[in-house]
Amino acid sequence: MVLETNGRVCYNTGIEETERDMERTKIGVFDSGLGGLTVLNEICRYNDGLDIIYFGDTARVPYGSRSPETIARYAEQDVRFLLAQGVEAIVIACGTVSATCIDLLRSRYRIPILGVIEPAASEAVRMTKTGHIGVLGTKATVQSGAYAKEIGRVSEGKRVTGVACPLFVPLIENGFVEDDPITLLTVERYLAPIRNTDIDTLILGCTHYPFLTNAIGAFLPGVRLLNIGTALAQKLSHAIPLQKNDAPSDVAYYVSDDDASFRSIANARLDAIPAGVVQKINIESY
Amino acid sequence: MVLETNGRVCYNTGIEETERDMERTKIGVFDSGLGGLTVLNEICRYNDGLDIIYFGDTARVPYGSRSPETIARYAEQDVRFLLAQGVEAIVIACGTVSATCIDLLRSRYRIPILGVIEPAASEAVRMTKTGHIGVLGTKATVQSGAYAKEIGRVSEGKRVTGVACPLFVPLIENGFVEDDPITLLTVERYLAPIRNTDIDTLILGCTHYPFLTNAIGAFLPGVRLLNIGTALAQKLSHAIPLQKNDAPSDVAYYVSDDDASFRSIANARLDAIPAGVVQKINIESY
Repeated sequence: MVLETNGRVCYNTGIEETERDMERTKIGVFDSGLGGLTVLNEICRYNDGLDIIYFGDTARVPYGSRSPETIARYAEQDVRFLLAQGVEAIVIACGTVSATCIDLLRSRYRIPILGVIEPAASEAVRMTKTGHIGVLGTKATVQSGAYAKEIGRVSEGKRVTGVACPLFVPLIENGFVEDDPITLLTVERYLAPIRNTDIDTLILGCTHYPFLTNAIGAFLPGVRLLNIGTALAQKLSHAIPLQKNDAPSDVAYYVSDDDASFRSIANARLDAIPAGVVQKINIESY
Repeated sequence: MVLETNGRVCYNTGIEETERDMERTKIGVFDSGLGGLTVLNEICRYNDGLDIIYFGDTARVPYGSRSPETIARYAEQDVRFLLAQGVEAIVIACGTVSATCIDLLRSRYRIPILGVIEPAASEAVRMTKTGHIGVLGTKATVQSGAYAKEIGRVSEGKRVTGVACPLFVPLIENGFVEDDPITLLTVERYLAPIRNTDIDTLILGCTHYPFLTNAIGAFLPGVRLLNIGTALAQKLSHAIPLQKNDAPSDVAYYVSDDDASFRSIANARLDAIPAGVVQKINIESY
């Protein structure tokens, strides 16, 4: 069944179509896997009344250890899949993609595209008192220097120290939660160089890392941790023209590989994201 | 330059073509990434006089946490890439692919295909005195039960206990070597359930795991560890009809993503594999 309203074509996917649905902006949100669910959680916490398509590229996760060329190729396929679902704006819920190829994506696709770097950089500048900001990220994110560039663009004189934490994503995806001794030892290993420095604000620059908030916070007392999903969600309506209503947001979930951990983490750890069917698609065909 | 001899077409790739090259069997070896280099190392240790094409799917590593359907799709593309290079036989240097889809590959491609399960199962049966064999592997490998099936096929009455160790591959790929406290703690966590049992033979059922031989051996004193690459290499000439000569084997390396760790691990840790140029290809086009 196809319904046409206001020049938009809405495909009925089995969800009851009502007048309110047709007024809502449909946005696409994507990540390499389940990390982006932390961003989705914040989007839904701060934004009612949206229609959201979420895609997690679970068949090719992780992105953060791959080359910039490969990350860009994967990200373009992710964007094309979301465009094929009729989205009107895209949120990159992946620190690595936001850091390495948002400019490329914006130059090729003429719809609003928002990444996690810009909102997080502005918020970190607002938060810091010492002027020294830390950034945790994947290898690709830290090597890109994207947070430092954006912080430099919005504010002069800030110092930025990046720390690559490549084992955090596999730890989280394999169920090593944040009170696990192996996880605590890894947190200690990566963060020891920035402990007892004048860093007072730490950007958790990968969307997986909010799952380690307590462990990181305990190791760095007095440092304020910045959830990039929260920063993005709070600025979403300023960055993207949104048509919303007062009903809860709806989410349709897509993945490129069937992954039980996707469902279990989505269900167990994130309290604001709505229930929804998870469908598998072949991302290589986009 | 193209040379034709004995009905075979040999493309001159810059390596000097001599009479001996044209008599040698060209075999393809593939893995999800750099783990397969441990198998290649053993193949070259036990087999002079081969022309080898090695492919590491570094753009989509790891395979072991993906679904059987996705692993099979990736493995078919890997095989098609090697066939396009003119290989006459294929070695699956990946525990996960060998465990989950070798039958599918053999049914679709009519050249000899050898995986790591069969040689390792025979060797483990030969080695065990207690009749209780342990198998370490990825989630996909352990869930497949492939080692237990093959051991049951070649010998009655053996007990097989599988242990999934999904964090081993990320640890190795991120440089957490085997005397690192984080690695030792992870070895202890995964292997504690099989310590002080009557397991006397342990199959390192993923081609990455030989990088952890010392750590695993220290935690399980008295248990004999089986390198699946060695088992395969020693039986290669029985399983596949090979034309060899006395010169060292040559290897041409291909990867799907440029990965510095591929080169550094290949150079630093494996003493029998030959030098060679590493070329990047787009595996999704196969």
